[in-house]
Amino acid sequence: MKILVLPGDGIGPEIVAQAKKVLAALQTDGLKIELEEAPLGGAGYDAYGSPYPEVTQKLARAADAVLLGAVGGPQYDKLDRPLRPERGLLAIRKDLNLFANLRPAILYPELANASTLKPEVVSGLDILIVRELTGDIYFGQPRGVRVNEAGEREGFNTMLYSESEIRRIGHVAFQAAQKRNKKLCSVDKANVLETTEFWKEIMIDVARDYPDVELSHMYVDNAAMQLVRNPKQFDVMVTGNIFGDILSDEASMLTGSIGMLPSASLDANNKGLYEPSHGSAPDIAGKDIANPLATILSLAMMLRYSFNAEAAAIRVEDAVKAVLAKGLRTADIYEAGTEKVSCSAMGDAVVAAL
Amino acid sequence: MKILVLPGDGIGPEIVAQAKKVLAALQTDGLKIELEEAPLGGAGYDAYGSPYPEVTQKLARAADAVLLGAVGGPQYDKLDRPLRPERGLLAIRKDLNLFANLRPAILYPELANASTLKPEVVSGLDILIVRELTGDIYFGQPRGVRVNEAGEREGFNTMLYSESEIRRIGHVAFQAAQKRNKKLCSVDKANVLETTEFWKEIMIDVARDYPDVELSHMYVDNAAMQLVRNPKQFDVMVTGNIFGDILSDEASMLTGSIGMLPSASLDANNKGLYEPSHGSAPDIAGKDIANPLATILSLAMMLRYSFNAEAAAIRVEDAVKAVLAKGLRTADIYEAGTEKVSCSAMGDAVVAAL
Ligand SMILES: CC(C)[C@H](C(=O)O)[C@@H](O)C(=O)O
Ligand SMILES: CC(C)[C@H](C(=O)O)[C@@H](O)C(=O)O
Repeated sequence: MKILVLPGDGIGPEIVAQAKKVLAALQTDGLKIELEEAPLGGAGYDAYGSPYPEVTQKLARAADAVLLGAVGGPQYDKLDRPLRPERGLLAIRKDLNLFANLRPAILYPELANASTLKPEVVSGLDILIVRELTGDIYFGQPRGVRVNEAGEREGFNTMLYSESEIRRIGHVAFQAAQKRNKKLCSVDKANVLETTEFWKEIMIDVARDYPDVELSHMYVDNAAMQLVRNPKQFDVMVTGNIFGDILSDEASMLTGSIGMLPSASLDANNKGLYEPSHGSAPDIAGKDIANPLATILSLAMMLRYSFNAEAAAIRVEDAVKAVLAKGLRTADIYEAGTEKVSCSAMGDAVVAAL
Repeated sequence: MKILVLPGDGIGPEIVAQAKKVLAALQTDGLKIELEEAPLGGAGYDAYGSPYPEVTQKLARAADAVLLGAVGGPQYDKLDRPLRPERGLLAIRKDLNLFANLRPAILYPELANASTLKPEVVSGLDILIVRELTGDIYFGQPRGVRVNEAGEREGFNTMLYSESEIRRIGHVAFQAAQKRNKKLCSVDKANVLETTEFWKEIMIDVARDYPDVELSHMYVDNAAMQLVRNPKQFDVMVTGNIFGDILSDEASMLTGSIGMLPSASLDANNKGLYEPSHGSAPDIAGKDIANPLATILSLAMMLRYSFNAEAAAIRVEDAVKAVLAKGLRTADIYEAGTEKVSCSAMGDAVVAAL
């Protein structure tokens, strides 16, 4: 198993270091892993003048899976658009054809207080958002700023989905629902946007292959409301890139502990890029206080999806649950009565609990 | 003052009837009003085969302000796209050039329990979302479903904003912020979409006319999170049509009492269409149990924005607060210890409290 590690920027290196400890422990126990490391985002720009340097691209293409910390930082804000850290992220997603982004929003019972929602609304929350990641208005052409016929400047972008793009993400979502509670909600704005009316039509067609899954449809504005009103009504949600960007962040914040939430971005052969749902948090970088659990849980997703090592994945997830049960907390999830630990101490504790 | 009343579909007629009682009472007290009535949405289709019939269009153009109930219902779901109720809504917005949609999200202290968020997170919540309403991907051309070069079907839409469109909604938002707490947050996805990078550039330029307003910028995914994490950080938010559709619905649901929230959609001369933020609720239509307060509060917005009748607006708003303080509640906001009343009884109570 060839894993490429991309520490990235901000807290990236420190949280990834904890995941590497976990990997090392699993390796001692017999898992065969080859590790490479390369820069992405601001780190890529600093080292090679590009947010997705060629060396990184080469290693990424050769790897079976990629573990990413996070990218971005204020020192890169003034760079030209193509040089900015997030361009590196978009580029690697597109380059590796990682069209299926899986983002669980799970509330850990020990962290129920962290949510801004009432306990009865979110206790036991367990949603999976399946976001299409390589299409839509993110990549659609034409795009830019031009002078229109009236002589005025205008900005423009193209929302775009082909039938095969919708079909393949549909299959991923239905199969995910089959392994869960067999309910899939497809989110669109079919009453206004032809692209998403087409999306809905194709989803209905894909559904014929999955008679055991109950498919429903919801407008994106209503979905944004229902996530606040009654999030537990959802099992799996599937949607396009831009709506998925918005809804998955909203859903993860329902838990109040985004420092706990992993994500996976997969291609058609289960090669994947795994990263925490949170950002690079430049304000706390280098202080050894960040929460490494989302990164460690991303590693568990890697074991599950890219290496089909379900037992190892569960072992890692159980270790995370064990440290929570023990009362260990990084600063972001700390509350009175628990024990505040550093990023590295949390990593060590997970290794010990493996 | 010429007002066109559009009862629309579902609960539309019953809630609008209550607002008309309030208008009649104000009229007795000296307000000069001419009322016309016409069908929109499904009602337009039923009467004239169009969701925005010519007769409605004529009256709408001639009116100083329009009061709308709500449109839509399951019986219209199978109609061809151009005949569906929401097409009527989009058409009247565009036809009257109602580019500025103002959507307050206010938590009434008496209804604090209705929110799914913890009281300390939402108590005192008072956000104004300014949504651009006649541009963006809602109306952008080209759009549709086509066969691409690879011989495959694809859906496509165009996100589009011209400089003048951004400028005029910017001015509305800054002026709204000036009358409130002087904080404006412009929401974009400038890290990915050129249209919204352009939006941000123009907002920064417009800001130079409003040195007393503090302008900030936030990515739409982060905004969707921050509304859940700490909604009281916001005063006024301004954003494009599609992001505004999503965020304004999310924000209104934070209050838990969307039956209380009005909206205004204004043109450049303060002619406006006023409607509750909630939908047509076909499931409870005709039962006299809907909440008419959002419609009555929409009328108050009409008095304020289109007729510059601030005193009358406050009188209506105070009457609504008085009936809440008295403990009267329609079913949607009812809780133990309050008095459940019908839609029409609620309307009568507001008239009595005027
Ligand atoms: C950084 C940004 C380009 C990215 C996105 O919009 O996809 C991020 O928000 C995410 O969700 O991973
Ligand atoms: C019904 C629909 C077309 C409309 C919109 O998307 O604008 C509605 O959601 C709204 O926000 O008024």
